[in-house]
Amino acid sequence: MKMPGRVYLVGAGPGDPELLTLKAANLLAVADVIVFDRLVSPEILAFANPQARRIPVGKEPRRHPVPQSEINRILVREARAGHLVVRLKGGDPFVFGRGSEEALALRAAGLRCDVVPGITAAQGCAAATGVPLTHRGLATSVRFITGHCRADEPLDFDWDGLADPATTLVIYMGAANIAEIATRLQGHGRDPDTPVMAINNGTRPDERRLVSRLADIAITAADASFAGPVVFIVGDVVALYGDSHMSPALQSALATANDVSREAAPYA
Amino acid sequence: MKMPGRVYLVGAGPGDPELLTLKAANLLAVADVIVFDRLVSPEILAFANPQARRIPVGKEPRRHPVPQSEINRILVREARAGHLVVRLKGGDPFVFGRGSEEALALRAAGLRCDVVPGITAAQGCAAATGVPLTHRGLATSVRFITGHCRADEPLDFDWDGLADPATTLVIYMGAANIAEIATRLQGHGRDPDTPVMAINNGTRPDERRLVSRLADIAITAADASFAGPVVFIVGDVVALYGDSHMSPALQSALATANDVSREAAPYA
Repeated sequence: MKMPGRVYLVGAGPGDPELLTLKAANLLAVADVIVFDRLVSPEILAFANPQARRIPVGKEPRRHPVPQSEINRILVREARAGHLVVRLKGGDPFVFGRGSEEALALRAAGLRCDVVPGITAAQGCAAATGVPLTHRGLATSVRFITGHCRADEPLDFDWDGLADPATTLVIYMGAANIAEIATRLQGHGRDPDTPVMAINNGTRPDERRLVSRLADIAITAADASFAGPVVFIVGDVVALYGDSHMSPALQSALATANDVSREAAPYA
Repeated sequence: MKMPGRVYLVGAGPGDPELLTLKAANLLAVADVIVFDRLVSPEILAFANPQARRIPVGKEPRRHPVPQSEINRILVREARAGHLVVRLKGGDPFVFGRGSEEALALRAAGLRCDVVPGITAAQGCAAATGVPLTHRGLATSVRFITGHCRADEPLDFDWDGLADPATTLVIYMGAANIAEIATRLQGHGRDPDTPVMAINNGTRPDERRLVSRLADIAITAADASFAGPVVFIVGDVVALYGDSHMSPALQSALATANDVSREAAPYA
């Protein structure tokens, strides 16, 4: 009987192959089997052991997706066969990646599963655009939500919480529902002038970005006819983008936050 | 006159050197100057160009920290001298890293600044412990806050929003204020039985972790006498940790979320 193998749930990051972790690259190089999503690019798969068997499980246009239960079965089957399996997922496996469902399935089957984090889209888009996720005086917290929901279910969030002006809100998979999200945020008190950035294919060579405000983002984004993943960053931090107009209120908030007279004494 | 250099704000990740990105490792290898925080380990600095000048700016016990304004001045000075400067920060420069203040200072000085994201502590701790940040049926969003505040200021959050049961809350730098945070969360309606994990030195060889519940976490964490950084993960996802007790309500929520009969048809 063969020894059971093991599975690594590995984050492939947001797109730029250089944003792979060393650990992810090292595991790809020694994997026997690589089970990967559609959003994982050929440049990233180029790090893989040439002898590795490659099993695509991502959604293809005009095809049904591989159901999660089938992906789980593939992982269990390949690990039981004694293979070193890399399950490669866009972004971070534990941020909207359903990686934890795969981990539970493997654990239930008595198999070893380790997780390698990846740069998530929010971080990749923030770094690429120079828009921070937090900034003194502008955002004391950051929150990630997914704007995608099952066809038979409404968007179910604590909208009052999402409307908090001191929280940067990052919306994954929100292109289809951005109009409803923007409307609800305003209905719950978020300022219609809140700046919003949409980033399409963030960190990839074909990255596109636009800056708008909460009241207009749905129309602006629709006009852009994005193809591929879109991330929305909602919050005053977006005013730090390049030549964006910064209101006097934001300038004042920044000046207060950065008042050096309130810092500790110089290094002795 | 020398050509001006440029500065890369680079995330060093949570501790494990293998969680550096390829881009971070590549930049460290060619840097002329490395300006680094105390939390960046010798194992990570080992990736650096041996000829690089190293400037530590982190807080040392019993010393005043280098003020942010002084760090900004060092970065501007070194870039103006024509150097390739890597500003190496624990975690991700744009998540509670004050990286955006450094980017603004460089931009104001007319200098080029690029940002390389890093695995943030929340991701490192989640992957290391197997506790996901989101999970169908348990958490539809994740939020990062810092529990550290200036000595002269109170913790200022939208506590109702933080109490949302469907949001995983990750608290950075919260060890000093966890008692107040836990009390306030309960006061605003978060269930006292909400599971909480504390991770000390996450992803490092000396990592320690404990699981408690919101009502008890302050005392449990104090008893642990942690040294070094502590991250708290608050939310039902913590129930997925190893042998944690999972309540019938959680089991039911999970079963519903994972009901495969609601998924799309198999891959055709």
